[in-house]
Amino acid sequence: MTPEDVLFRQATRADLPSIVRMLADDELGSQREQVENPLPASYYSAFEQINKDPNHELIVGERNGEVIGTLHLMFLPSVSFQGGLRAQVESVRVDKRLHGQGIGSEMMKWVMERARQRGAHVVQLTTHKSRVDAHRFYERLGFIGSHLGMKISLK
Amino acid sequence: MTPEDVLFRQATRADLPSIVRMLADDELGSQREQVENPLPASYYSAFEQINKDPNHELIVGERNGEVIGTLHLMFLPSVSFQGGLRAQVESVRVDKRLHGQGIGSEMMKWVMERARQRGAHVVQLTTHKSRVDAHRFYERLGFIGSHLGMKISLK
Repeated sequence: MTPEDVLFRQATRADLPSIVRMLADDELGSQREQVENPLPASYYSAFEQINKDPNHELIVGERNGEVIGTLHLMFLPSVSFQGGLRAQVESVRVDKRLHGQGIGSEMMKWVMERARQRGAHVVQLTTHKSRVDAHRFYERLGFIGSHLGMKISLK
Repeated sequence: MTPEDVLFRQATRADLPSIVRMLADDELGSQREQVENPLPASYYSAFEQINKDPNHELIVGERNGEVIGTLHLMFLPSVSFQGGLRAQVESVRVDKRLHGQGIGSEMMKWVMERARQRGAHVVQLTTHKSRVDAHRFYERLGFIGSHLGMKISLK
């Protein structure tokens, strides 16, 4: 089975447990997610916000009926770059058991194609400085680490 | 006159020439903006997209009736962080003639207050690696440069 057999589609509410499981399944994610059955209601409220906004696409990758990857693609209108539309990706995950099979690359190629279709001039993302493998992964796809990503927690 | 005399408000179409002038007024911006009278229509289309979306706030800082700063604040629903709302800032500029007066700090404090009001758990931004003064500026406000910001141009 090849990565090309992965189907990408809009996530539904029923996909949320799989999505949250993948978000939680690494060192950083495990500290901030709450994997319970049922999931905390806050996940479902966020899903509704995302789902009703045409500038947001919560995507899953599916193979043999199983959700094996996820990403959140957003389209951000901007005044800068002569009013250019930006695409931004957040929350990219591939099921850990399937790392190294090229599924992440297929997902990101899908993202770039989708961003082109919608007229974005750039795809942007941030990745934690500690995720060195991720930096190399994105560089292989042509991304350039030109920026410093800064955050302040309000909690 | 102190920075506290700056009034922050939603930008109108009539503010666009001032906004674009400030975006263009530095080394990186001058390469990508087109400052003409009238402005290229693409700026106005982007403004309409931003203006009709309640998750986007294009803001100007005004002093004595003159626009002296701008920023684009956006609220991004997300599944991660237990469905936590993110605030993101792009296109932050203060009129170059007024640098060093604390106006940028006032703008960012306004952003953090606004983000709290709307329930965001984080404010995030990226800044070009070459903008070392900006990194220090944001660090003084409490931002942490924890991420690498990566981009790929689709043009």
